[in-house]
Amino acid sequence: MTNHGSSDMTEPKSPERWVVHLRMTPPELKDNTADAERLVSCLKPILKTRHVDLDLFIMKKIPRIIRSAGYRVTCLVFKDRDRWILVDIKAQDDRTAFLGLAVDLGTTRVVFRLVDLETGVSLGESSFDNPQIAIGPDILTRIHYTDQKGGLDHIHQMIIDSFNLEIEKISEKAGIAMGDISLMAVAGNTTMTHLFLGISPHFIIREPYIPGINRPGLHRAAELGINVNPGARVFVFPNIGSYFGGDLIAGIVYSGLNTKPEISILVDVGTNAEVVLGNNDFLIACAGAAGPALEGGVSSIGMMAGPGVIDRVWLNPDGSLGVHTIDEKPPVGICGSGFIDLAAMLFKSGAIDIRGRIVSDKHASRIRVIDEMNHLVIVAKENSGTGEDICISQASLDSLIRSKAAMFTILETIALNVGLTLQDLSVFYVAGTFGSFINPESAITIGMIPDLPLETYKTLGNSSLGGAAMILEDRNAIDQVDEIRNSITYIELNVDQGFMNRFSGAKFIPHTNPELFPSVRLQNV
Amino acid sequence: MTNHGSSDMTEPKSPERWVVHLRMTPPELKDNTADAERLVSCLKPILKTRHVDLDLFIMKKIPRIIRSAGYRVTCLVFKDRDRWILVDIKAQDDRTAFLGLAVDLGTTRVVFRLVDLETGVSLGESSFDNPQIAIGPDILTRIHYTDQKGGLDHIHQMIIDSFNLEIEKISEKAGIAMGDISLMAVAGNTTMTHLFLGISPHFIIREPYIPGINRPGLHRAAELGINVNPGARVFVFPNIGSYFGGDLIAGIVYSGLNTKPEISILVDVGTNAEVVLGNNDFLIACAGAAGPALEGGVSSIGMMAGPGVIDRVWLNPDGSLGVHTIDEKPPVGICGSGFIDLAAMLFKSGAIDIRGRIVSDKHASRIRVIDEMNHLVIVAKENSGTGEDICISQASLDSLIRSKAAMFTILETIALNVGLTLQDLSVFYVAGTFGSFINPESAITIGMIPDLPLETYKTLGNSSLGGAAMILEDRNAIDQVDEIRNSITYIELNVDQGFMNRFSGAKFIPHTNPELFPSVRLQNV
Repeated sequence: MTNHGSSDMTEPKSPERWVVHLRMTPPELKDNTADAERLVSCLKPILKTRHVDLDLFIMKKIPRIIRSAGYRVTCLVFKDRDRWILVDIKAQDDRTAFLGLAVDLGTTRVVFRLVDLETGVSLGESSFDNPQIAIGPDILTRIHYTDQKGGLDHIHQMIIDSFNLEIEKISEKAGIAMGDISLMAVAGNTTMTHLFLGISPHFIIREPYIPGINRPGLHRAAELGINVNPGARVFVFPNIGSYFGGDLIAGIVYSGLNTKPEISILVDVGTNAEVVLGNNDFLIACAGAAGPALEGGVSSIGMMAGPGVIDRVWLNPDGSLGVHTIDEKPPVGICGSGFIDLAAMLFKSGAIDIRGRIVSDKHASRIRVIDEMNHLVIVAKENSGTGEDICISQASLDSLIRSKAAMFTILETIALNVGLTLQDLSVFYVAGTFGSFINPESAITIGMIPDLPLETYKTLGNSSLGGAAMILEDRNAIDQVDEIRNSITYIELNVDQGFMNRFSGAKFIPHTNPELFPSVRLQNV
Repeated sequence: MTNHGSSDMTEPKSPERWVVHLRMTPPELKDNTADAERLVSCLKPILKTRHVDLDLFIMKKIPRIIRSAGYRVTCLVFKDRDRWILVDIKAQDDRTAFLGLAVDLGTTRVVFRLVDLETGVSLGESSFDNPQIAIGPDILTRIHYTDQKGGLDHIHQMIIDSFNLEIEKISEKAGIAMGDISLMAVAGNTTMTHLFLGISPHFIIREPYIPGINRPGLHRAAELGINVNPGARVFVFPNIGSYFGGDLIAGIVYSGLNTKPEISILVDVGTNAEVVLGNNDFLIACAGAAGPALEGGVSSIGMMAGPGVIDRVWLNPDGSLGVHTIDEKPPVGICGSGFIDLAAMLFKSGAIDIRGRIVSDKHASRIRVIDEMNHLVIVAKENSGTGEDICISQASLDSLIRSKAAMFTILETIALNVGLTLQDLSVFYVAGTFGSFINPESAITIGMIPDLPLETYKTLGNSSLGGAAMILEDRNAIDQVDEIRNSITYIELNVDQGFMNRFSGAKFIPHTNPELFPSVRLQNV
């Protein structure tokens, strides 16, 4: 009962904004500090700092603006480690907002969120395809392209141009001027970050896999060629290495995992499965695409989401499969989350065995043999949007089993690394778009994720964007970025005998050791 | 005799340069820190800092350069308060020098000194008229000009253009590329500094006399439009106020007055007489153009230096006056230093009395009465370069007396302010071009400066330029700038009754109190 006070202590502090209102003392003969230093001396106690840096651009503005504003001004500040910067200044009665742009810089998709920096309110989101897809959909092709003459400049300019275009659109839509955008926070993987900054990613994919930069820090938008406020700053999230980027650091910030005493895990299921485990005391991370056993990663399951793609599957009371498609269009295929549901349902109904094999004596009518391989019809051609049966093959199921086994093994291994079991986790954060759609119950059923109470699972959605937005909304969040960057231990997955043994055990549904999945065992009695 | 060791302690530390050679450990699988952070981690212990900031420009260069250099690189760093910056990087076997440009940004004349940043060696000097003279020779006219539409931009661009032109010339002459210049240190008075940066000086001359900025700090040359290394930084000396500029701070650094335990005084005799008194413990300063008593300052004496201008005057054994002219051309007039010599000689020979009055019964043949005012012929028309007698008028002598009295009173007052007398001073630094030419013996004779042993007087020459060059030659010097800036106490000269009494006493040659000038008294016996 002595604990009553402590819950307040773990509550997040109410956010402090980057926008600060000042009432300055006018100069006089006995107090002839220069205008800029007078302003800075007002800011210093508020920001608890010894110095505030000013651009020349701001130095030029200050004398007139403070006088015309009657010494009541609104300042936009920002921070880079222990260095504070006065980004812009306006009269307090100037109603123009200082705006920020949070950016999830994805390999495939780029998402913007416009934020009012004074209130923290989101003014809308927009997204567009990363134009570098035209060079190649994958990171590798884009990196190779930068080795061509002019390639780096070109691929860099592509993303910058697309930013400018989208900023124009989003500004028009929100009824604001592009120049009102004065801060940006950009979270992307290590390669996307390099391409965004125009830094060669050449050595990222060459042994010993070295990024050009770990901590890009703060840049002037103007220097990057981004058409916003001339003094605007762009914060670019740091990376831990070639395979653990700023998008994941943003995700950690967003989850808050690093601020809580309980041990949690964050899994970002994208091209790789990046995993972070820890609490306010320690953080360990690994990227799950290491080693030949994991080839293909976990996202090779199913097709990309799109209209008519099956994203949810369930077992009807009559034992038949129910499906839901995106936009409720006639089914054309199945995506990852749908496939995980499907596998779980097939397993529960006995259509596949514990090794993921299609059981021939069940649903015999649904089995097709194509190229000597069993296929299971999910949607008959009469009901499909393609005019063909929608099937999954034994090979796809095998692939799913390998993927889910890899996933589980990675989770087990990282926990083992710090002497924990997966049962010790208090929260299991699932990040990434793909992750958002996975039904934890199905994923538990096939043994992809540990058998924790369902309420343990928390989906974060676009955690990169969320983390980037937090930087803009709360001036205390940025300190966490460096804390995370500096404290995180990145472990290479050591694919040794122990790992392979755990991997073999995980290649069953849900697992060779059913005690690890009591809830599944019960359902299958 | 126990003091032997201490002289070493007061010796200046051997300079540490801004150029640093590094041998980096190549990356490997077990040490996959990014290139930029690898480089920074080598720099940090050398610079004893926690962070080193990098421009995007440098981030882009690093990956290729460190590999092609076999991880042996030469770095140019710079510092802004506690913030270190990697300005540029090259391979160690690249023989191109990193160069710096020290600048004395005078109202009338601008002086450049090119410095090899690795060795500290000066590669030459050049100077040119401040092109803003075309707007007006004085500060006031230039400030008023900035209030015209486009005036500030124009007057700012004038100085920038002249910098670029002179940099081109000096580079050509020294056989270097303009891009090799990577650091600049600029010392100017408060208004010149504002015009150089394009910051409005409007309020400098308007009560309560507030500069736009006290501490302009570090800027990118590119942002100022100066055509040197794209990553080059320009350090601009801070000012104490509208009437105590960065040129004087540079002068203090150059004198070393702020580093010694003995109390010294620094007098910069230019348009005003700025005075700094102190030691390694305290510094007080005042600018001597305050109050109506001092109107005209001390430099209204005589004409500007030029060919044929009398700069030295002495008494020949036969009692006649000897003169020296600049470039040894036939005399055309007299400048300040010559006038002080002349007044001293006239006083010694009895041609003027202790109030500076021309004594009619001496040298009667040399006296001309023009407009009812006595004039004394210095050079008869037969020997002059103008075809006319070169005279000085009683009015000029009166003006000299007022000026020298003002000077002495300022010195007395500032000493009095900290409970000292002028006899307590261990070194008397004389800065400024005008100061360099003053003969201390003559200045003592007329009671302009205190009657200290002649070896107490040290002329510093162009101390602004010297101080600016020190910033480039020694990376420890820059800390002194902020120390001086933050510790100096600027006192307004309070022209009260005490001041006026001291001023009245000083309006005699050498002084109403001859005990203050024992050496002069002896000569006059």
